[in-house]
Amino acid sequence: MRQAGRYLPEYRASRERAGDFLTLCKTPELACEVSLQPLARFPLDAAIVFSDILTIPDAMGLGLSLVEGVGPRFAKPIRTSEDVRCLGEPDPESDLGYVGDAIRLIKRELNDSVPLIGFCGSPWTVATYMIEGGSKHDFTLIKQMLYSEPALLHQLLALLARSSSSYLLAQIEAGADAVMIFDTWGGVLSTPAYHAFSLHYIKQIVTAVNGAVPTIAFTKGGGQWLDSIADIGCSAVGLDWTTDIAKARSRIGARVALQGNMDPAILRADPVTIAAEATAIVEAFGTHPGHVFNLGHGITPDIDPDNVAVLVDTVHSCSATILASPKIDNE
Amino acid sequence: MRQAGRYLPEYRASRERAGDFLTLCKTPELACEVSLQPLARFPLDAAIVFSDILTIPDAMGLGLSLVEGVGPRFAKPIRTSEDVRCLGEPDPESDLGYVGDAIRLIKRELNDSVPLIGFCGSPWTVATYMIEGGSKHDFTLIKQMLYSEPALLHQLLALLARSSSSYLLAQIEAGADAVMIFDTWGGVLSTPAYHAFSLHYIKQIVTAVNGAVPTIAFTKGGGQWLDSIADIGCSAVGLDWTTDIAKARSRIGARVALQGNMDPAILRADPVTIAAEATAIVEAFGTHPGHVFNLGHGITPDIDPDNVAVLVDTVHSCSATILASPKIDNE
Repeated sequence: MRQAGRYLPEYRASRERAGDFLTLCKTPELACEVSLQPLARFPLDAAIVFSDILTIPDAMGLGLSLVEGVGPRFAKPIRTSEDVRCLGEPDPESDLGYVGDAIRLIKRELNDSVPLIGFCGSPWTVATYMIEGGSKHDFTLIKQMLYSEPALLHQLLALLARSSSSYLLAQIEAGADAVMIFDTWGGVLSTPAYHAFSLHYIKQIVTAVNGAVPTIAFTKGGGQWLDSIADIGCSAVGLDWTTDIAKARSRIGARVALQGNMDPAILRADPVTIAAEATAIVEAFGTHPGHVFNLGHGITPDIDPDNVAVLVDTVHSCSATILASPKIDNE
Repeated sequence: MRQAGRYLPEYRASRERAGDFLTLCKTPELACEVSLQPLARFPLDAAIVFSDILTIPDAMGLGLSLVEGVGPRFAKPIRTSEDVRCLGEPDPESDLGYVGDAIRLIKRELNDSVPLIGFCGSPWTVATYMIEGGSKHDFTLIKQMLYSEPALLHQLLALLARSSSSYLLAQIEAGADAVMIFDTWGGVLSTPAYHAFSLHYIKQIVTAVNGAVPTIAFTKGGGQWLDSIADIGCSAVGLDWTTDIAKARSRIGARVALQGNMDPAILRADPVTIAAEATAIVEAFGTHPGHVFNLGHGITPDIDPDNVAVLVDTVHSCSATILASPKIDNE
């Protein structure tokens, strides 16, 4: 997550040339350029298209701005049934074509060296920004709508699920080899509310993708709901670092692959600690197939790229050692 | 949580008279007054002393200020080993005597009508504010210390555990009938880090209290670690609203009582929804003894006190119905 980002000096240079974050996302040549930067530096196993989870509400005309240090802001947040009624479903080609164009450029450059991951936000997560009007940590307005006008919120979430489905299908059509659904804020819900207002709509997207490519569902803070997430038909479940990956594997079994789950804060430590923590995660998962190592959240701007190199090297060498060892499943 | 708070007009009046939040905490007569306000309005089953989890670092001389809308700030945050070395253990009588005095006043006024709960923050949670210097949501500095200088962080946490233990014992000596340890930020840690840097020190405090009164341990976001929390010797485990209380009960059994777990955001909905959500929680817990109904986090200032009245009445009537029903344990 944030494989391309402000921790890389070459990214900061591209961003400066673009002027702002949204221009970087919306200019396929620049999005391609920054998507490939981490792969030029590190022997990574996959690329991820440089974009943002708020492209859909931006295409719906909500007036997105992304201010550094402040986060996203919508000029026209969604608060009333009239607001929801006026929203249209963006066309993935005419309204969001820049993402498909970026994917096609990246695929050409990658030339099948590694797979490319596309993504979208979960309907619940995207709706939190649309309703709150930006980054909030209390979710006052969307929770008020959830408990006072659930039908209205469901109407918005259903529209977002349809829009996200056609958006991911367009990304796959353009060449994405796998797609990930980021549910950054599902973890602020009660168990029944999570199932009804977040997971239900993630499942609709996974169902629409219909196995065209592998799908990865990730709810930050969703460790308690892994069993339900594994049951929606996705190929892999993302884990944040609060979940014990060995326990997750024994709960989930071989139904789905698991992706995760190092705390990105560890990248601030010394190389020895980084290597030890990464090794612990790879070893905890064991010899069972189906582990995609990654961070449980985005890399922050203050991280030294050399520390990311230590992480990537450790994961590769440690995985090779484990996979070469006698195949005794430690379940 | 925040039983006395800005949602009550009488609290806002007391606070205005006090001038600021810290003066309210540190003036026993005012702290007593606001502690009793919710009980004058609602037929509550317990009182909680009005105070703050940051009284200990304030007594350590870190220069605490609590600014409305901004949160706590420390003029002298803890960053280096020299900073930690200079910290002393506050004396619960001479440095924090105002809390004991408030408890004695409240106990006299309550006249054994309902029990009084005392509290402290968990060492990890208190340390996050001391090191970050205030409310942060990324925990950059404390996580850097955790992974780069774990021995230094352990030194600070051990001091906080000793200080919190003598602080709670003084609250019990003054008359507190139960004590709660609030671990607001344990949920941002990985599983091994949570056990080593948060739960370990909560356990030290519970051990120091040594059954003098019931102890309640609450880690927000700690749903995945309930079994470990239940094993530290506490009398009750607090749950936030992300945890299914019926599942928690079947996992934990009768080892400890459970406290929780309604999302305070539900108090923004209409009375019918509030009653339905509260009933669902009480019914999900079932007829097993050992359920303390409360909110999974604090009441926010925008809540209508009439909605709190609906909640309290629903919990009482629903509990009475369940307890009067034939005793078939729905485990």
